Amino acid sequence: MSFRLSELSRLLDVPMSGEDDPLIQAAAGLSDAGDGDITFAETERLSAELANSSASAVVVKPGTDCTHPALRDENPRAVFTRILELFAPDLDGVFAPGVHPSAVVHETAQITGVLSIGPFVVVGPNVVVAEGTRIGPHVVLERGVRIGARTRIHAQVTVREGCRIGDDVILHPGVVIGSDGFGYHPGATGLVRIPQIGIVVLEDRVEVGANSCVDRATTGETRIGAGTKIDNLVQIAHNVSIGSNTAISAQCGISGSCEIGQGVTMGGQVGMGDHLALGDGAKIAGKSGLTRNVDAGQTVFGYPAVEIRRAHKLVALTHRLPEFFKRLTQVEKALGAEKEES
Amino acid sequence: MSFRLSELSRLLDVPMSGEDDPLIQAAAGLSDAGDGDITFAETERLSAELANSSASAVVVKPGTDCTHPALRDENPRAVFTRILELFAPDLDGVFAPGVHPSAVVHETAQITGVLSIGPFVVVGPNVVVAEGTRIGPHVVLERGVRIGARTRIHAQVTVREGCRIGDDVILHPGVVIGSDGFGYHPGATGLVRIPQIGIVVLEDRVEVGANSCVDRATTGETRIGAGTKIDNLVQIAHNVSIGSNTAISAQCGISGSCEIGQGVTMGGQVGMGDHLALGDGAKIAGKSGLTRNVDAGQTVFGYPAVEIRRAHKLVALTHRLPEFFKRLTQVEKALGAEKEES
Amino acid sequence: MSFRLSELSRLLDVPMSGEDDPLIQAAAGLSDAGDGDITFAETERLSAELANSSASAVVVKPGTDCTHPALRDENPRAVFTRILELFAPDLDGVFAPGVHPSAVVHETAQITGVLSIGPFVVVGPNVVVAEGTRIGPHVVLERGVRIGARTRIHAQVTVREGCRIGDDVILHPGVVIGSDGFGYHPGATGLVRIPQIGIVVLEDRVEVGANSCVDRATTGETRIGAGTKIDNLVQIAHNVSIGSNTAISAQCGISGSCEIGQGVTMGGQVGMGDHLALGDGAKIAGKSGLTRNVDAGQTVFGYPAVEIRRAHKLVALTHRLPEFFKRLTQVEKALGAEKEES
Repeated sequence: MSFRLSELSRLLDVPMSGEDDPLIQAAAGLSDAGDGDITFAETERLSAELANSSASAVVVKPGTDCTHPALRDENPRAVFTRILELFAPDLDGVFAPGVHPSAVVHETAQITGVLSIGPFVVVGPNVVVAEGTRIGPHVVLERGVRIGARTRIHAQVTVREGCRIGDDVILHPGVVIGSDGFGYHPGATGLVRIPQIGIVVLEDRVEVGANSCVDRATTGETRIGAGTKIDNLVQIAHNVSIGSNTAISAQCGISGSCEIGQGVTMGGQVGMGDHLALGDGAKIAGKSGLTRNVDAGQTVFGYPAVEIRRAHKLVALTHRLPEFFKRLTQVEKALGAEKEES
Repeated sequence: MSFRLSELSRLLDVPMSGEDDPLIQAAAGLSDAGDGDITFAETERLSAELANSSASAVVVKPGTDCTHPALRDENPRAVFTRILELFAPDLDGVFAPGVHPSAVVHETAQITGVLSIGPFVVVGPNVVVAEGTRIGPHVVLERGVRIGARTRIHAQVTVREGCRIGDDVILHPGVVIGSDGFGYHPGATGLVRIPQIGIVVLEDRVEVGANSCVDRATTGETRIGAGTKIDNLVQIAHNVSIGSNTAISAQCGISGSCEIGQGVTMGGQVGMGDHLALGDGAKIAGKSGLTRNVDAGQTVFGYPAVEIRRAHKLVALTHRLPEFFKRLTQVEKALGAEKEES
Repeated sequence: MSFRLSELSRLLDVPMSGEDDPLIQAAAGLSDAGDGDITFAETERLSAELANSSASAVVVKPGTDCTHPALRDENPRAVFTRILELFAPDLDGVFAPGVHPSAVVHETAQITGVLSIGPFVVVGPNVVVAEGTRIGPHVVLERGVRIGARTRIHAQVTVREGCRIGDDVILHPGVVIGSDGFGYHPGATGLVRIPQIGIVVLEDRVEVGANSCVDRATTGETRIGAGTKIDNLVQIAHNVSIGSNTAISAQCGISGSCEIGQGVTMGGQVGMGDHLALGDGAKIAGKSGLTRNVDAGQTVFGYPAVEIRRAHKLVALTHRLPEFFKRLTQVEKALGAEKEES
C-alpha cells in the first residue's frame, strides 16, 4: 500500500505544501520516521526536531515553518490518525471472512449477516449476533448472549450467559464479560456464595482491553456507557455503572456498585473502594486509591486520593520533612539556650 | 420462574407478614426493585428507604416497621441469598449436559460421572475428574491433573500438568492454575531459569476469579485452603500457602513463599513481599503493601502497611503538614524577634 | 526417576562428601525436604537448620560444616537448579509430540520441524514457525506471525497479526501478544480510536508470564530485549522498549513509549508513567510509582518514587510525625510562657 502525498491530500481533503510529491509507503512516529514515511508534529518543540528527520513528508499546523513536503491542518494528530486508518490492515486480514466449519453454533442461535466466525468459536443457544460483526478464533458466547452490529470480538474472549453487547464494540483477546461477582457472606461453616444472577451490558462503541474482566451484577446490570474505553487487565466488579466516553487505563480496579460518570479519565492502576461515585469529567491520576466520592470536574491524586494540587503540596512537604526536623531541633536548642540565659 | 410469597415462605421456612400474597418474579437490590420483585433491607436506614420502594415484597428483620408484604428473619441477607439461588439459572443452562463430541479426551483419562464437558475441551493423559463435575468450553486439563467432585470449571481455563483441584471448587473463565513460578538466578550469560517442578493444590470449595493465576511450586506445593475465595486478576506466586476461608479481592499479588492464615480478609490491589506470614483473621485494607509479617487478628493499612489506627493517624498528620510548617515558621519568627529584643 | 548421589556428582561434575551414597528420588526446599530428597543451603543460617533436616543429601559450599551426604560447590543454588532440571518432566510430557489432527493450519503457513502443535491450535496465513518449537492446545497465531526455534507457547496464548517471537522464548498460558495499544484522541462525538498498526517483537530467550499482555506499537515496534523475563499479569503498553536481561515482576504496568534499559529489576505492582526512561541496572522496589526517569544503577522506591535511602528516610520521618507534632506544641507553649514572662 502506498500513496503519493498529493493523493493523501485529496483523500483526506487536507491542503498540501512543498513542491515535491513523495511516494508515502508507511506512517511512523517522529523519532522513527525515515525515507518513505509520513509523520506528524503537533508542537513547536517537535516541529524543531523535524529539521533532522529523514521522513518523506509530515503533517503540521498551517503556520509551522517546515521544509518537508507537508499536509497542513489545525489538528495534525487527527489527520495522522486518518492516515493510520489508510495503512491499517483490512479487517478481512485480521478476521478471516465466513463461518469456519469447526465453529459450534447452536441451532437456535441467530447469526445471519455475521462477517466472520473463526475456528473453534462456540455460540450457545438463543445467542443473537447482528450484521457486520466479526468473531475471532476460540471465542465463547454462552446461552442467550446478544451482540450488536459491526462489533469485533478478538480471540479467546468469553461472554457468559445473558450478557448484552452493543454495536461497534471491540473486545480484545482474553476478555471475560459476565463472570460472577465476588459476593459472599459469613455462614456457619465458612463463606456463603451469593448467587450472581444479573448481567453485563456494554453499550455501543465500548472497547475492552486484553484480559480485562467485567463481572455480572448480583441482580440487575453492570453497565458500561457508550463510547467508553477500557484498557488491558482492568477489573470492573459487579453492579458497577460507568457513563459514556470515559477512559480507564490498564490495571485499574473498580469495586462493586461504584458509579462513574461520563468523560472521566483514569490513569493506570487506580483502585476504587466500593459504592463510590465519580462525577462527570473527573480525572484520577495513575495509581491513586479512592476512598470517597469525587465531584464532577475534579482532579485527584494519591492514596487516599485528594484534590491534586493539595496532593502535590503534601508530597512536596513530605519531602521537606528532613529540613523540618532539623529546624524544629534548632528551635528547641535555641529555646533551651534562652532558658539557660534567662 | 415465579413464586407466590407464601411459597417462598414455605420453601425457605421463614415466616411471612402482611395480608397480600404477591407473585414474585425476580429478586433485586433495594434501589432497583420494582413491581414483581422481592428485595431486602438489613439496616434501619435501608428500612426507611423501603417506604418509597415499589418492590412487591421484602425481607426484613422481625421487628422492622414495614408495610410491604415481607419475609422476616434475623439475617435478611442470608434469606435473600437463598432466594437468589431459587432464581439462579439451572447449571444445565450454564454448562450444557453431556460430553461434547468435539472434546479431545485422552484414552487414559478417567471421566466417568462428569456431567458436562464442553466443546473443544482438552483432557490430557491420566487426568482424573470425579462425579458431578462440569467443564466449560475450551478448558485444558493437562497430563495427570486431578479434579474433585461437583466442581465447575468455566470456559478457557488452563490447569497445567499434575495439579490437584478439590471438590466443589469453582474456577472462573480464563483462570490459569499451575503456570511456572517466576524463579531465576544470575548466570554468566544472563538470568538462568529455575525449573518449577512442584504443583498447585486447591482444596475443597476454593473459588478462583476470572483471569487469576496460581503458580506451581518450585518444589512441593502451592496450596490454597478449603473454602478460600479469590477474586479476578489475582496473582498467587510459587510456594504460597493460604489457609481456609480466606477472601482475597481483585488484583492482589502474593509473592513467593508467603504463608497466609485462615479467615484472612484482603482488599483489592494489595501487594505482599515474599516470604511473609499473615496470621489467622488478619485484615488488610485495599491497596496496602506488606513488607513484614502481620499478627493474627491485626488490621493493617498503607505502604509500608502498619496497624490501621496508626496508619490513619499518619495520614491525618500528613494532611496537617501545611499547618505544621506555618506554625514552625511562626515559632522561628517569634524566637528571632525575641532574640532581637533581648 | 532417581539417582544415587554419586551419579549426580558425576553428571553435574560437582565433588561429593560423606561416606553414604543415598538414593535421591526428588529435590525439595530445605523446610520440606525429607527422606529421599536432596536440598540445598546457601547461607550459614540455613546450614545451621540442616542439622535438623531429614533430607538424604544436600548441596552446600565447600567449607560448610555438614554431616549430611553432600555435593559441594561455591554456588549451591546453581547446582540445585541443575538438579531440578534432571527431575523436571520431559517436555514431551508437557507438549504432546506431533501435530494434533484438530489443529487448523493455513496452507500458506510454514511449520516444518515444529515438535508439537496441540489440539485446536489455529495457525493463520503466512505464519512461520521454526524448528524445535512446541505449541500447546488452543494457541492462536494470527496472519503473518513469525516464531523462532525451540520456543514454547503454552495453552490459550494469542499472538496477533504480524508479531515476531524469537528463539528459545517461553510464553505461559493466556498471554496476549500484539493486542491494540490504548490510543485515542478527543473528537467531536467522543474518543477517536488511533489505529495501532505496529507490531511486537520479542527477542530470543524472552519469557512472558501467564495472562500478561504486550500491546502492539501504534507505528513501529514494541520490543522486549533478549533474555528479559516478565512475570504474570503484567501490562506492557504500545511502543515500549525493554533491554536485555531485565526482570519485571507480577502485575507491573509499563505505560506507552517507556524505554527500559538492560539488567533492570522491578518488584511487583510497579507502575510507570508514559515516555519515561529507566537506565541499565536500575532497581525499582515493589509497588513503586514512577513519575520521572531513573538513572542507570539507581534504586528507587515509593510513589512518586525517589532514591531508596531517601524514600526510607521519608517513611521513617512520617512515622515520627506524632512525636513531631508534640514537640512543636511544646515549643509553642514554652515560647508562649516566655512571652508571658517577659
